[in-house]
Amino acid sequence: MRGTVLYAPRDVRLEQRDDPKITEPTDAIIRMTATCVCGSDLWDYRGINPVTQPTPMGHEYCGIVEEVGSDVHSIKPGQFVIGSFFASDNTCPHCQAGFQSSCQHREPIQGAQAEWLRVPLAGGTLVATSGQPDDDLIPSLLTLSDVMGTGWFAAVAARVQPGMTVAVVGDGAVGLLGVLSAARIGAARIIAMSRHQPRQKLACEFGATDIITERGDEGVAAIKDLTDGIGADAVLECVGTAESMTQALRSARPGGFVGYVGVPHGVNLPGEELFYSHVGLLGGPAPVRHFLPELIDLVCNREINPGKVFDLTLPLDQVAEGYRAMDERRAIKALLRP
Amino acid sequence: MRGTVLYAPRDVRLEQRDDPKITEPTDAIIRMTATCVCGSDLWDYRGINPVTQPTPMGHEYCGIVEEVGSDVHSIKPGQFVIGSFFASDNTCPHCQAGFQSSCQHREPIQGAQAEWLRVPLAGGTLVATSGQPDDDLIPSLLTLSDVMGTGWFAAVAARVQPGMTVAVVGDGAVGLLGVLSAARIGAARIIAMSRHQPRQKLACEFGATDIITERGDEGVAAIKDLTDGIGADAVLECVGTAESMTQALRSARPGGFVGYVGVPHGVNLPGEELFYSHVGLLGGPAPVRHFLPELIDLVCNREINPGKVFDLTLPLDQVAEGYRAMDERRAIKALLRP
Repeated sequence: MRGTVLYAPRDVRLEQRDDPKITEPTDAIIRMTATCVCGSDLWDYRGINPVTQPTPMGHEYCGIVEEVGSDVHSIKPGQFVIGSFFASDNTCPHCQAGFQSSCQHREPIQGAQAEWLRVPLAGGTLVATSGQPDDDLIPSLLTLSDVMGTGWFAAVAARVQPGMTVAVVGDGAVGLLGVLSAARIGAARIIAMSRHQPRQKLACEFGATDIITERGDEGVAAIKDLTDGIGADAVLECVGTAESMTQALRSARPGGFVGYVGVPHGVNLPGEELFYSHVGLLGGPAPVRHFLPELIDLVCNREINPGKVFDLTLPLDQVAEGYRAMDERRAIKALLRP
Repeated sequence: MRGTVLYAPRDVRLEQRDDPKITEPTDAIIRMTATCVCGSDLWDYRGINPVTQPTPMGHEYCGIVEEVGSDVHSIKPGQFVIGSFFASDNTCPHCQAGFQSSCQHREPIQGAQAEWLRVPLAGGTLVATSGQPDDDLIPSLLTLSDVMGTGWFAAVAARVQPGMTVAVVGDGAVGLLGVLSAARIGAARIIAMSRHQPRQKLACEFGATDIITERGDEGVAAIKDLTDGIGADAVLECVGTAESMTQALRSARPGGFVGYVGVPHGVNLPGEELFYSHVGLLGGPAPVRHFLPELIDLVCNREINPGKVFDLTLPLDQVAEGYRAMDERRAIKALLRP
C-alpha cells in the first residue's frame, strides 16, 4: 500500500509500504476513507521533535472496517468507524474514569496517512456510525479522531458552562474547534485570539463574538479590557509554547480554568504565580474516545460542522504539499483522500 | 496594647504597640479572644522570607467586636466574630465567584497576635456566631480563620467527593485538617503522609485510614501500591516545596486533581510532565471567607473539632515560645490567649 513516511525535517514522502496485517486478536484493519495532517505532525516535520529514523506519519483516521481479530466483537467488517489517536481498551480504570488517552494499555496510532491502517485494541478504540454516513459528513467525522475531540476536551477541561466568557489562545484547527466547542456548550461570549484574517473569519463562523489580535501581555490586557478587568471565566490553550501558556493563565479570572491541549514545548509553570492567580489547570492528550459517541451524534444530526477547518483537500499522493501548506500557514488543515 | 513583632529571623517579641483605631468607615476593632501562630509565619521566622523591617505578626483571629466604622452594618459591637486572613469586601466579582482571597480590594491581615486588631472591610470579612460560643469551642472557631478553611479549600480544590481515595501530603496543621475535611466530605480512604507519631495519631483521629511514612518517589510508589497502581482520586498538597508538589502530582491518578495550599517556595511545574499526567491543579490562598458560614455551623453543632490541632496553649506573653515550639516541631500549632 501507499503510506507517508518522514525521513528528515521537511522530507516527507508517500511510498510503498507493507500492507498492515492483524498481529493481535484485538486488532482491526481499516481501509482509509479520509485522513489528514495534524498540527502536532509539524513538530516533527519542522525538526523541533528530532527525527531519528524514517517514521510512518499520521494518527487521524476514519474508514471502513476490512478485517477484525478474533477478540474484537463490538465492530465488524463493512462498518464505518472513527477512532482516537491513542488506542485504548476502554475498560481499565483510567478509561472508565473518562481518560482513555491514559489507558493502562494505550498505544499511539502511527501511519494513518496511508491507504490502510492497523488499529490496536480495536474494540475499545473504534466507534461505528449507524449506517454509512453521507459523503459530505466525512470531513467532520474525520475531525472527531483528534482535532475536534481535542478542542472539545479543551472546553470541558476549562469547565466551560452556558453563559460564560471564554477566551481561546491559538487559531490553529484545534483552537478554532475550541471556539466551536465553547459555542456548542453555550458560552455567551467567545474571544478568539488571532491575527490571521481567514482564521478570524472561520472563528466567527464557529461562534466567536470577539477577536483579539494582540499577543502576550498586550493580549492579556485586551482580554481584561473586554471583561471589566475580571478576566475570562475559562481559557482554552491550544498552542503549547511558554508564551501561549503564560498568556492563557494570565487571561483567566481567579477561580477560572485553563484547559490546555497544546503539547507543551519548553513550558515551565511558576508555582508562586499560579498560586496567587487562583487559576485552575487541566489538560493533556485529549481522551477523544470518551467524546466520540456524543460528537458522532452531533455531526450526523448536522448540529456541528467541524469539517470546515479543512481548507485544503488533496489526494494522498500530494501529502507533502499538505505538510508544506500547513507549515507555511497557507492552509489551516489539509485533508487527504487515499 | 501588647502585640507581636518580628525583628529578625528567630527574634520575635511581644511589646507595647499603639492601640488600633478605626481609620476607614469600613473598619472594625475586635478584642482578641484567641489567636495563634501559623505555619506560614515560620517562613518569616526562619528568614526564608526576608525580614527587612520590624513586622507585626499574626493573621488568625477571633474575638468580640468592640467598635465598627460608620459603613459597617452586618456586624455590631458585642458580637463574637471570626474573619479571614485576607480582608475582602465580599461583593466584587471575585468574591461573588467564591474567591474572596482574590477580592479586588483585598488587604492582608497583619498584627493579629495581639490584644486588639483593626479589621479592614469588616462587613465583608467578619462573620458572627449566633450568640456567644461556649469557651471550649474557641480553639475550633479560631481554626476557621485560616488553617481549617485552608485544609477545607485544599479538599474542595482537589474535588474530593464521597467515596474517593484521597492522599494528603504534609502533616502540619493544614494537612491534618485537610484529612478532617476529606473525611467530613465523605472520602472512603484517606492516606496521610507522615513520619511523626503524634501527627500520625491525630491524622487517624481526624479520619485517616492509612499512613505512609515514605517520601518522594518512595512515597509515590507506596500510594500506587495502596491503590492497585492507579493513584489517588484527589491529592491535597499542604507544604509548598518543590519536593512536596512533585510528590502530590505523581500521586494522583489521570483525571485526578491536586488541591494545593502550601505557599509555593521554589516550585516550577514542568509543563510536559503535567500534560501527560492528566492531573488537574487548583490552589492558592484559601478563600476561607467563602467557607466560614458553613464551617461555623459545623463547629457550633459539634460535628467537627478542628481545634484539636492546637497541642500547645500559651498566654500571649509567651508568643516567642510558641514560635520556637513550632519551629522545632515540638508543637503542631500554638494557640495564644491574650
